[in-house]
Amino acid sequence: MIMYLNGVYVPDTEAKISVLDRGFIFGDGLYEVWRAIEGRFFEPARHQARFENGLRALKISQPDDTKAAQIRAIADRLFAENSLQAGEATLYLQVTRGVASRTHHFPAQGTKPTVMMMARVFTPSEARCRTGGSAITVPDIRWHRSNIKSVQLLPNVLANEQAHQADALEALFVRDGLLTEGTHSNLFGVIDGVLRTHPANDFVLPGITREVVLEVAESIGVPRAEKAIGIDELARVDELFVCGTTMDVTPIIRVDGAPVAGGSPGPITNALYEGLLARLYSRQEVAKT
Amino acid sequence: MIMYLNGVYVPDTEAKISVLDRGFIFGDGLYEVWRAIEGRFFEPARHQARFENGLRALKISQPDDTKAAQIRAIADRLFAENSLQAGEATLYLQVTRGVASRTHHFPAQGTKPTVMMMARVFTPSEARCRTGGSAITVPDIRWHRSNIKSVQLLPNVLANEQAHQADALEALFVRDGLLTEGTHSNLFGVIDGVLRTHPANDFVLPGITREVVLEVAESIGVPRAEKAIGIDELARVDELFVCGTTMDVTPIIRVDGAPVAGGSPGPITNALYEGLLARLYSRQEVAKT
Repeated sequence: MIMYLNGVYVPDTEAKISVLDRGFIFGDGLYEVWRAIEGRFFEPARHQARFENGLRALKISQPDDTKAAQIRAIADRLFAENSLQAGEATLYLQVTRGVASRTHHFPAQGTKPTVMMMARVFTPSEARCRTGGSAITVPDIRWHRSNIKSVQLLPNVLANEQAHQADALEALFVRDGLLTEGTHSNLFGVIDGVLRTHPANDFVLPGITREVVLEVAESIGVPRAEKAIGIDELARVDELFVCGTTMDVTPIIRVDGAPVAGGSPGPITNALYEGLLARLYSRQEVAKT
Repeated sequence: MIMYLNGVYVPDTEAKISVLDRGFIFGDGLYEVWRAIEGRFFEPARHQARFENGLRALKISQPDDTKAAQIRAIADRLFAENSLQAGEATLYLQVTRGVASRTHHFPAQGTKPTVMMMARVFTPSEARCRTGGSAITVPDIRWHRSNIKSVQLLPNVLANEQAHQADALEALFVRDGLLTEGTHSNLFGVIDGVLRTHPANDFVLPGITREVVLEVAESIGVPRAEKAIGIDELARVDELFVCGTTMDVTPIIRVDGAPVAGGSPGPITNALYEGLLARLYSRQEVAKT
């Protein structure tokens, strides 16, 4: 794989950073993931805006090569170098506060952020989106800025591993009795005919797919509320699903080993998935920036 | 500086890791810092035990070169290579879950953890420990396993930078109205003649200096309670200090711009500092492992 690292294109075996990089020492950085279909990004402006919001939240000056046009150009070269122009791919971008002698506070002004990008082949799991899968619940012990797409992901790693060990697709975080989101997805449910998801506050990632799903719901007339689902409401959800850039709309039909939502994907979930597919694969919607 | 990285000794300019290291991608790793005085570690068994507890908590298999005897041997070589055998130094160790293709769940069994160690000169700030300094308070938005010395340190970085901007020595975290600890120190206060500190639960680091301070307090007959100080008790603390491997016992005499504890270091704080110095610099106490 050819990667982009601080201005140069290198094989992954040579893509190396200093052990003093603040990403490695402190988890002092953030990332973004774009979905590309035949080289075209899905919702590029929203991904770009979220990424730039994250930079501002962490007070990292935006490196020139992470402006929208430059990312597009670097992605083009990575897709070409790695034969990813046809089919689907993801572009992963990570920016950290750079390399400096270890101090908790920010390093000297002028310290150059580290910029890494990689493109990987992506295969959507349509079968999984049709049949659904299971999830487990875990306490949401994450920091209180999960709205920033930072690399503070150790709790996500530990929870996702727990799901993996349980043959579950996802682990769902529970904070103060409320389901917040998955380890790398947002959570939706249908209760009493209303599509519900956690409000986009500091405790969940403002998912791009989450927004698109809400828009699709509006366009097909599904009532919706940005109101978290209580763990005590799980027994009576009519439908449940997770969504995200790499999860699309994936029904959840078992939680902690027990069937939910009748144990099969529901009609609203299926309609939202169809609506997402239409957005993903419609040329108008994925126009090149 | 000569560092240790995965079995080899290299100049810091050559100490590089893959961008796919899970330390960089997920903050999936932990660290430990030892204080060395003329090459001898202070409380090595306790630091080793805390480090090994962290490995178990994160389910990272202990690499051979992080066993106590190996760390001691690597430290000896790093102290020699970097002319740190005389005077004081710190040894920093970081272990991550290693290099793997990016998946949230753990990589394949057999993935080799990354092991990095570096030694740096250390100059204790005795003047600061005599005169004290100021602190600010910030909401404790960290994850709920601050007892693990992981590299999930972005909230610590942001809070410490805020302190730095305010010319304060430390930022003190406040969770649910209670002071937990500093960004890289534990917090103690004296209220009504009782030495108080947050209990060693999941929300604070089980500091080695914290333990030593409690032992010194016992030895000199200071009543003590592992009970957090409420933010509403700050106005009436008689003494306040932070402590840690690189902070020793540092009095806090202003918080958020207002004097606390009469605006000067108190007698119990001074006595505990003296007791810590006696432990640090007594040959019996810092016997080589």
